[in-house]
Amino acid sequence: MKALIIAAGRGSRMRHKKLPKPLIYIYGLSLIERILLSAKKADIKDFVIVLGYKGEKIKRKLGSGKRYGINIEYVMNEDWEKGNGVSVLSAKKTLKAENFILLMADHIFNESILKRLIKVPLKRDECALAVDKDIKGEHFNPDDVTKVWINDGRIKKIGKALESYNGVDTGIFLCSPKIFDALEVSIKNGKYALSAGNQVLSDWGKLKPVDITGKFWIDVDDKIALKKAKEVLIQHLGKITDGPISRIFNRPLSTKISAFLSKLSITPNQISFISFLTAIISAIFFSNGRYIYFIIGGIFAQLSSILDGCDGEIARLKFQQTKYGGWMDRILDRYADASIIFGIMYGIWINTGWRGVWILGFITLIGTFMNSYTAGWYDSFLREIGNKKKGFRFGRDVRLFIIFLGGIFNQLLPVLFILALLTNFESLRRLFLLNRLSKSSE
Amino acid sequence: MKALIIAAGRGSRMRHKKLPKPLIYIYGLSLIERILLSAKKADIKDFVIVLGYKGEKIKRKLGSGKRYGINIEYVMNEDWEKGNGVSVLSAKKTLKAENFILLMADHIFNESILKRLIKVPLKRDECALAVDKDIKGEHFNPDDVTKVWINDGRIKKIGKALESYNGVDTGIFLCSPKIFDALEVSIKNGKYALSAGNQVLSDWGKLKPVDITGKFWIDVDDKIALKKAKEVLIQHLGKITDGPISRIFNRPLSTKISAFLSKLSITPNQISFISFLTAIISAIFFSNGRYIYFIIGGIFAQLSSILDGCDGEIARLKFQQTKYGGWMDRILDRYADASIIFGIMYGIWINTGWRGVWILGFITLIGTFMNSYTAGWYDSFLREIGNKKKGFRFGRDVRLFIIFLGGIFNQLLPVLFILALLTNFESLRRLFLLNRLSKSSE
Repeated sequence: MKALIIAAGRGSRMRHKKLPKPLIYIYGLSLIERILLSAKKADIKDFVIVLGYKGEKIKRKLGSGKRYGINIEYVMNEDWEKGNGVSVLSAKKTLKAENFILLMADHIFNESILKRLIKVPLKRDECALAVDKDIKGEHFNPDDVTKVWINDGRIKKIGKALESYNGVDTGIFLCSPKIFDALEVSIKNGKYALSAGNQVLSDWGKLKPVDITGKFWIDVDDKIALKKAKEVLIQHLGKITDGPISRIFNRPLSTKISAFLSKLSITPNQISFISFLTAIISAIFFSNGRYIYFIIGGIFAQLSSILDGCDGEIARLKFQQTKYGGWMDRILDRYADASIIFGIMYGIWINTGWRGVWILGFITLIGTFMNSYTAGWYDSFLREIGNKKKGFRFGRDVRLFIIFLGGIFNQLLPVLFILALLTNFESLRRLFLLNRLSKSSE
Repeated sequence: MKALIIAAGRGSRMRHKKLPKPLIYIYGLSLIERILLSAKKADIKDFVIVLGYKGEKIKRKLGSGKRYGINIEYVMNEDWEKGNGVSVLSAKKTLKAENFILLMADHIFNESILKRLIKVPLKRDECALAVDKDIKGEHFNPDDVTKVWINDGRIKKIGKALESYNGVDTGIFLCSPKIFDALEVSIKNGKYALSAGNQVLSDWGKLKPVDITGKFWIDVDDKIALKKAKEVLIQHLGKITDGPISRIFNRPLSTKISAFLSKLSITPNQISFISFLTAIISAIFFSNGRYIYFIIGGIFAQLSSILDGCDGEIARLKFQQTKYGGWMDRILDRYADASIIFGIMYGIWINTGWRGVWILGFITLIGTFMNSYTAGWYDSFLREIGNKKKGFRFGRDVRLFIIFLGGIFNQLLPVLFILALLTNFESLRRLFLLNRLSKSSE
């Protein structure tokens, strides 16, 4: 299925000196790039973009779409100033007689909205609009958003000036070519906005709502909305599987670092490697065996833990997630874990001469690896129960935090004991949990 | 969808003193239990079984089906001696007007056949028969099997006596209730076999073939077929992800052990635990530090490796696979690996007094765990390319075999060096492989 993106308007409430609104940047990506890449995540690869105000700049930026792994065709609408209905209609010939997705170049959204919308069965001549029923939401400006009145499973009224309404227009549509007929009628009546064409569809009983309440979308219409969009994108970077230290301490810091780094050209894999090097530095300081170095080692361990969040955050912010990146991060993390344990073990040994520390380190390494080994299914279990309760997750964030405390307070030997116990206990706890789960699912 | 199982016949070519044929055992399960559990794997939970010869024994064995996690209804066919067409027809009332799967109590099969058959779209009044086009196959008796003649995507002729044929009847059907009409016609004409009813369906143009060539099925019709069925079940126990030592050395032994153990009530999880204990014994012998004990340690390590195959084999043979069992095995394997490395390290240390062995053991443990850690995606990759080429898999079978050799020949220190290198090299090799794969898939 193709997607039509309307990128013709001026964006009057957020005029930029040089750039058309679709080229305004959020975390290293322009608005329209975010829209293309979100749609790509919903498996849409072919796009038609309607250009108007400073369209050449947009075209120069995006090109054929090849470097995003997509195809882009362009339609120039010289009459863009009349209204966005005219812009949609100008793509009529290019789109031929197929159903298509209709998107606005300034409405960013989570791909889950599109994934749901694409699956909606359309009868002949029908169109569907993704509707947010949270009409008191803070992610749009109630004075400016297009409202809808839904009754009997149909959108009966649509427009900015509705007095009573029970949903708001997200600007995300699944259209049949009937939309063009409707726009021709509304334009003939001197109404050039897309919502006027949609009102005609509604009058014909052909516009149905698809409820996407709770999913992320935002109309980046003014400076306030831009700020809100940035906030929400950052908030969404945490994972449901984050452990307590990650949630409370690491994420608030790592997301700030990521927000900054996203503007640079540094890649997630490079950050994985920096986090790994930070851990190696920590291990080297620990292995020195003196308290003052233990403190520095502890700080670097915690720093590595914080940076370990950034690679994934930037990958998610900039649509750069790859299977390889995920595995490289995981494998480097394991070598980092092992190095830190080794550094601590060695540091204690040259400090105290106690040979038992080798056995202790060995047991700690086993337990640490076992936790990572079982993390895959345990996290998928946490994601399943995620909305029901927050399970305490004893993971890497907690381990490195304990090591950080041990370094700071010169308590590395007790910390090694604690980790040896906790990690192995945790791996057995998970096994018992799985046993209980498989019994209850029989 | 329900499945109808015909378990009414006497099984004249394989008469058993006391038991009806469906209750003959193969590896700890009766034929009819295998059929029920195979169908359950294809998500069929409701069964109707037609009983005849010694039907009470079958009913007593299977009961309500609750302990298999399924529902069973029974139909008694007093006229079973007339032929299996009469048995099918006797279930007409019980099955009502729905489509259903039809199975024979003596045809065992891999669930993949049913999974394919269930998805076949049936037009009104149509039936479909799973057909094997390998007419020279060794998994049936050509004198006794029912043959089919396929033309224009339809089964034109069906019967045991066809002179020319291009497929054989597997006894696995997807039926509409039209089959009962056809049987009523054939029975009225004095023909009581199911294939006679199917010939009527063919005459009506209502019987279509579904090609399942290459998938496992066998009609356990006589002693020879029973032997063949046992062989094939054992052959299917290997995995495409088996490493070279496993394929050449361990599987031939472990499958023999499993074939024996499957007849006992020992569970796969108990065998996992025995394999784990064997590894612990190996570690204890290694840790003793003397050559004579190294030999015993090596033998126990290899024995543990062989037994490690049996838990999965028995689980597959007896339909006892569980997620918990799989994870318990994996977790015990990791602790077993760590224990053996620890034992070797300790044994070398008390033998030589060389402290560097602790570092070496530590590095070996890291590499060993990394290989297990990445085994999940690596194995799914091997399964993908599985039919194209056999990738050499450096896994647990190879590691334990190297340890076995090291114990036998008193070369544990070099072995530890080799393992430290190979395991860590392998984890990096996998990372590079993933990098290459993700680039080629872009």
